[in-house]
Amino acid sequence: MYFIHKASLYLLLSSFFFMSVVIIAPTRRTDHWKASFEKLYPNETLYTWPDVADPESVECALCWYHPEGSLLEFPNLKLVSSMGAGVDHLLKDPKLPAHLPVTRIVDELLTQSMNTFVMACLLHFHRRFFKYERDKKAKIWDIDTIPEIPIKVGILGIGALGMALAEKIKGIGIDVIGYSRNVKLHEQIPCYSGAEGLKQFLGQINVLVCLLPLTRETEGIINREMLMQLPEGSCLINVARGKHLVDDDLLWAMDNGRIAEAYLDVFHTEPLPKDHPFWERENVFISPHMASVTNPDAALPQVMENLHRIKNGLTLWHQVDVAAGY
Amino acid sequence: MYFIHKASLYLLLSSFFFMSVVIIAPTRRTDHWKASFEKLYPNETLYTWPDVADPESVECALCWYHPEGSLLEFPNLKLVSSMGAGVDHLLKDPKLPAHLPVTRIVDELLTQSMNTFVMACLLHFHRRFFKYERDKKAKIWDIDTIPEIPIKVGILGIGALGMALAEKIKGIGIDVIGYSRNVKLHEQIPCYSGAEGLKQFLGQINVLVCLLPLTRETEGIINREMLMQLPEGSCLINVARGKHLVDDDLLWAMDNGRIAEAYLDVFHTEPLPKDHPFWERENVFISPHMASVTNPDAALPQVMENLHRIKNGLTLWHQVDVAAGY
Repeated sequence: MYFIHKASLYLLLSSFFFMSVVIIAPTRRTDHWKASFEKLYPNETLYTWPDVADPESVECALCWYHPEGSLLEFPNLKLVSSMGAGVDHLLKDPKLPAHLPVTRIVDELLTQSMNTFVMACLLHFHRRFFKYERDKKAKIWDIDTIPEIPIKVGILGIGALGMALAEKIKGIGIDVIGYSRNVKLHEQIPCYSGAEGLKQFLGQINVLVCLLPLTRETEGIINREMLMQLPEGSCLINVARGKHLVDDDLLWAMDNGRIAEAYLDVFHTEPLPKDHPFWERENVFISPHMASVTNPDAALPQVMENLHRIKNGLTLWHQVDVAAGY
Repeated sequence: MYFIHKASLYLLLSSFFFMSVVIIAPTRRTDHWKASFEKLYPNETLYTWPDVADPESVECALCWYHPEGSLLEFPNLKLVSSMGAGVDHLLKDPKLPAHLPVTRIVDELLTQSMNTFVMACLLHFHRRFFKYERDKKAKIWDIDTIPEIPIKVGILGIGALGMALAEKIKGIGIDVIGYSRNVKLHEQIPCYSGAEGLKQFLGQINVLVCLLPLTRETEGIINREMLMQLPEGSCLINVARGKHLVDDDLLWAMDNGRIAEAYLDVFHTEPLPKDHPFWERENVFISPHMASVTNPDAALPQVMENLHRIKNGLTLWHQVDVAAGY
């Protein structure tokens, strides 16, 4: 007969029987997450905050813009995961329990989604779709304008997601370079870093794609000073966070022709307020933060694997450096 | 001292001194062709029809919708070349001298141009840009609609140009197959041919890209019967010739939801007449036959090389099978 300590027994049993996961995402649809979870883990429990019958059983929180302090409701939490690639919404919570590991989702479908969205934008610019759509309204058949704007794309914040995107862009015969805080090396994609590198990076591109993580250093980074370093008639694609961009500086740059077109998927306030000037601007494309939306079928196995890894002392997948902010 | 026959001497001299090329393209801008020719061949003469000072010196005609019979003005013509990839405009001339070889341009930049244009269209459809542009006008922030339409692309008339395009489409992670009259084999792109093959091809795609040559067999091929074989909400991209499409059948298919969006670069009559219903249709993208425009810097060396090859009895580049029509 073996002697088992009562607390150990509780832990053992709870890990088999009472484990649960909570989704805290009050601003998002979660029904497809719930459906995916029930399909993949029919014997486990997924709660949707704030309807949590047994907070003590919750070992993992899946978050998207969770209310500040809401994680404190779960005393046995072992893991906090973002529901997407970004973690700024997690790290900005001063009540984020400091001992908990934070992870994010790296999903091939999310990467694919980001790739097709950014390429849709840059080809829309390259092949003058705004112009042809305007011409159509006026029934104008213009064969004098050269049909292609020569482009060179720069990815600001080139990490795993950005590098995959850069390879696809290069694959369709379009020039592309990258910039990141830390030095990145790639055989085919020239990458820049540092203050001098940023100048060189901006000096040779006319399509700026923002894929940065949102940190104290990157907030408001796309401002007048940066936009001034692009040539006349450039294009901005922001698929990172609204707070990377100083909205008024973009409007200024569009007024003076520096920026010809902007493709914005993210905004300071979402939904974008009805009185925001972007709605009325010509040559601004607006989408409701859907450039890349995490697929729960791909994300949930990563989260459950990480929960398993924590319990077994293994290295986590896609863990966030909380101090660095990404 | 050598004896040289008078006629031979004339031929010898003419091939060095009096050779000229004529452009016959009354519906197109030709100034950039002229500039390119002067840069590349400063010692040769390029005429622009109908201003031809010395028709006898013309050995090569570069044509784009030349007027019927205009080639008969040049008694010493050795070569007729299209100014682009299509040759239907040449072959429809009943007065096309039967003894002359006909060639077309295969230009890497033209291929690149075709690739980016078709990808711009299919990504526009895939990522619902029409919808988001409409939503923007109404200041609608819709997060309930799934942001991507799943797509599988079919290239109707997959030849050299289409295969290059298919590889690029596949390269960005989008499913693609091809159809051609003759059996084509490709490691990664499934290709169909024959009547049964056409059915199989149409039965599995929802984006139809027309890249066919215009021949007696392909005129009007995109009709009600073909469109009926696509699923509800499909997309048509026509970058070949306007005459491939039965316009009324497209309108019918859009009315009943079979075709959700159409991207049309070519039309029965160009410029597209002001009273044509396509201008007023929602979800129809119109561009003025600019999907891929030949670059003279790439095209002219091909033409001049072919002229050299004719004179030296060598096999021509990109010669057209006049009987087959492409």
